[in-house]
Amino acid sequence: MESHIGKIGHSDYVVIIGCGRLGANLANTLSEQDGNVLVIDKDREAFRKLSPSFGGLTIVGDATDFDVLEEDAQMSKANVVVAVTDNDNINIIIAQIAHEVFKIRKVIARLYDPERECVYREFGIDTICPATLSAKEIERILSKRNADDVYEEVEK
Amino acid sequence: MESHIGKIGHSDYVVIIGCGRLGANLANTLSEQDGNVLVIDKDREAFRKLSPSFGGLTIVGDATDFDVLEEDAQMSKANVVVAVTDNDNINIIIAQIAHEVFKIRKVIARLYDPERECVYREFGIDTICPATLSAKEIERILSKRNADDVYEEVEK
Repeated sequence: MESHIGKIGHSDYVVIIGCGRLGANLANTLSEQDGNVLVIDKDREAFRKLSPSFGGLTIVGDATDFDVLEEDAQMSKANVVVAVTDNDNINIIIAQIAHEVFKIRKVIARLYDPERECVYREFGIDTICPATLSAKEIERILSKRNADDVYEEVEK
Repeated sequence: MESHIGKIGHSDYVVIIGCGRLGANLANTLSEQDGNVLVIDKDREAFRKLSPSFGGLTIVGDATDFDVLEEDAQMSKANVVVAVTDNDNINIIIAQIAHEVFKIRKVIARLYDPERECVYREFGIDTICPATLSAKEIERILSKRNADDVYEEVEK
């Protein structure tokens, strides 16, 4: 997967919760850009998705446990928190704790349920919804198809 | 979820396989735009996600069964086929049948595994990967954050 996270400073401390495909990919990319990255996952096996050159830290633990966030992850020092476990409720809880308790300026949560998206945006939490993004991408592909068809008609 | 599929003609016949969040959303949107939409899903309950105003057709059936595609779905008449079940292998099989056997001009498959994406693009099948799209969206959000930070520095 290609991804270039623009302009992450080497002094940024990014905490990623959930080391699934998205979490691991993001962690690898940010680590390559000399960001300070910490990844938390309940399952030690999940860290296998990190690249051999991953230079960040990992914590095996439950990120809904306040102590894990405060003491182990030093959450208060984070500039960016990204909650991308496969559970919407857990992502929401973590995002709210990050935003409200630790006063993190940039909090991003993945929500599979698109209905919840707009609610959290109002609370200062950025949300990403794979289904919404996928629908927009299909829209882009179909628009392109129709533009190509028009072009072919003109060519004839 | 907001989505506007650009310029779908009313004569287009779109077959969507998989009536999950993405499939149902797409079906609703295309139906609103007077597209001829058919949705196939193995599970009748899945069609509950379609809006009450959905004006397309539904088939309860296994879309890896050739007869379902050929006879029930009249696949050969489709202009667009979108394979968005929650199983990558099934989406690939259907996309390949649509492209190779039924010679559908525009075939789109969702693949959760980003490693497979580029392979199928070469075979004329458009693929969308939620993890890739999500990573790009996070990239966009973080770039924006950094641009905002620079702006704030200048303001001080």
